[in-house]
Amino acid sequence: MTLLDADVLRLLAIGAGILGTGGGGDTSVGLLAARQAVEDEGPPRLVTLAELPEDGLLLPTGGMGAPTVGIEKIENGGEGARLREAVEHEFGRPVVAVMASEIGGSNALLPISWAARMGLPVVDADAMGRAFPELQMVSMEVAGIPPCPAFITDERGNLSVTRAMDGHWLERLHRQLTIELGGSAMTAEYVLSVAQAKTATIEGSVSFAIGIGRAVDGAAEDPVEALRAAVSGFRLLRGKVVDVERRTRRGFAFGTVTIDGLGEDRGRTLRVEVQNENLVAFEGDRAVATVPDLISLVDAESGHAIATERVRYGQRVVAIAFACAPVWRTARGLALTGPRAFGYDLDHVPIEELQA
Amino acid sequence: MTLLDADVLRLLAIGAGILGTGGGGDTSVGLLAARQAVEDEGPPRLVTLAELPEDGLLLPTGGMGAPTVGIEKIENGGEGARLREAVEHEFGRPVVAVMASEIGGSNALLPISWAARMGLPVVDADAMGRAFPELQMVSMEVAGIPPCPAFITDERGNLSVTRAMDGHWLERLHRQLTIELGGSAMTAEYVLSVAQAKTATIEGSVSFAIGIGRAVDGAAEDPVEALRAAVSGFRLLRGKVVDVERRTRRGFAFGTVTIDGLGEDRGRTLRVEVQNENLVAFEGDRAVATVPDLISLVDAESGHAIATERVRYGQRVVAIAFACAPVWRTARGLALTGPRAFGYDLDHVPIEELQA
Repeated sequence: MTLLDADVLRLLAIGAGILGTGGGGDTSVGLLAARQAVEDEGPPRLVTLAELPEDGLLLPTGGMGAPTVGIEKIENGGEGARLREAVEHEFGRPVVAVMASEIGGSNALLPISWAARMGLPVVDADAMGRAFPELQMVSMEVAGIPPCPAFITDERGNLSVTRAMDGHWLERLHRQLTIELGGSAMTAEYVLSVAQAKTATIEGSVSFAIGIGRAVDGAAEDPVEALRAAVSGFRLLRGKVVDVERRTRRGFAFGTVTIDGLGEDRGRTLRVEVQNENLVAFEGDRAVATVPDLISLVDAESGHAIATERVRYGQRVVAIAFACAPVWRTARGLALTGPRAFGYDLDHVPIEELQA
Repeated sequence: MTLLDADVLRLLAIGAGILGTGGGGDTSVGLLAARQAVEDEGPPRLVTLAELPEDGLLLPTGGMGAPTVGIEKIENGGEGARLREAVEHEFGRPVVAVMASEIGGSNALLPISWAARMGLPVVDADAMGRAFPELQMVSMEVAGIPPCPAFITDERGNLSVTRAMDGHWLERLHRQLTIELGGSAMTAEYVLSVAQAKTATIEGSVSFAIGIGRAVDGAAEDPVEALRAAVSGFRLLRGKVVDVERRTRRGFAFGTVTIDGLGEDRGRTLRVEVQNENLVAFEGDRAVATVPDLISLVDAESGHAIATERVRYGQRVVAIAFACAPVWRTARGLALTGPRAFGYDLDHVPIEELQA
């Protein structure tokens, strides 16, 4: 049995940063919240779906908004309980475990802080296997689980319950509410039973993130190589950040990061385009890695992820790319999260093929 | 007993246009919807609060958004039933009558169309005695009735139920949802019992609007004078619209209408500033009428109101001002709806004093 204690949370934060591909919110904020909750209430258990009652409800939850905002506008700890109460009222059944809707960034950790405060276990699964910028980009949408009723709250106590026509409408409505609530808010949607989750979530992703953290943290010599091996990934480039363009609009952090190669990569330039998360990496006109595969910028020494809101000129980084969860490479998965879903006139080519 | 049949609706539309002070939505759209509903289902009864069970719920409802949008994006007729179902589910009690939240403009008529389709009576009261641009500007807010749970829906079937911290937060959240739903949406908030409504609404306002319509419609010679007498109002100016500035932003129709005097008013100029509704009328630097008193622009021949989205260069108009419902001249009422609530550095002076 894994207890999500302070040591494990530290490793999880490292792994969730990598899986966040720039987004999901700053892990240092989520880690502080989770550690405080664990110190106050004791560590929650990490459980598999098999350990939970089939008809129990999961609370898939996390923060919504631009990570550039979430880093300053923090939670008060009571959001999870408010969401749970509303979910149980609407569904008329108890929530048996909390699930991070996205395992990337702070959103892997905030749900744990709420689970600790509510005395609920955390399920070893998520709905993305990474971070994505829009709320309908979840495995439950691919599986046909309805997104609504959906729930949104903030640190003040505002709460809305929405029945939208579909996941895209819910994304639009929750995005507007998030903007008005100050640019970040806490949500739950695609609420589902444990039985449904067995074919509609990405199992093992919390353990996977912890394992990544352990590999990076325990590396004797080369944390970046340890990371690459842990995720079966590819080094796109090692270099220096020479330009960062960033703009927060429509509630998202958009931007472009340009990296000039150093050492054996000297003379090459990588351009990473961002919508909260790193979406596509280009060398010249050629896409060398594309969403839904993961593209992470990590510190060239420590191997720790550098989040979208932390990237800055002069940083020495390695760009790593690796394969997404299989669900995203299905036709439905690609329609939802492939390059075209973000406006790129590109087909997704698996990173293993691009790098072959 | 008054039945809200086609003839009465026509008179109500005329009166509601006047009470809309430019806003509340185009009455021709609301009138068409109400007449169709009455033709399909029969006319609903207009009832007093005294005729209803004390503990029955009222459904205070209407459209939200910029009238410049509402004129093109119309309802489908099922919004009222969806709101009612959600209200009854949340409150656990039946709705016994529909109330127009604002008696101004189309918002006096849409609730009648829904009442007809639901087989419910319409109560002879509203929450403004006119139209106001923001949803917390209602008599229930003055009376301390909570705004939430509050309900918003659209013609597609999207629905949100919100528990906001207060009326101002609800206005912000519903406004954003309205914008995302296309610039107009249907809402219910400040849901209250018949007993509460007896001290928290403006009674008799539907009859008052019908009476205004009857006076204007039945005037043998001078409909504008008949109107002035019916509302105990003041003519601010008779003239020609020489400039209209209009901009839709933050979900509101803002603008300024400039009128040059004709006939005995030649040489004078009136400037009317608008946020959905006509808020303040200036002659030079002097405010000659201010919100919450009513300022209506009416056609110089017919006495019919000219809505914000219909005002245009060259129209011959009379600007009429008259006293608001007493609730708005209390300290709480003025704090909520006086000129300062709209950003003007002006105190409200009652129109009777300004014109004395």
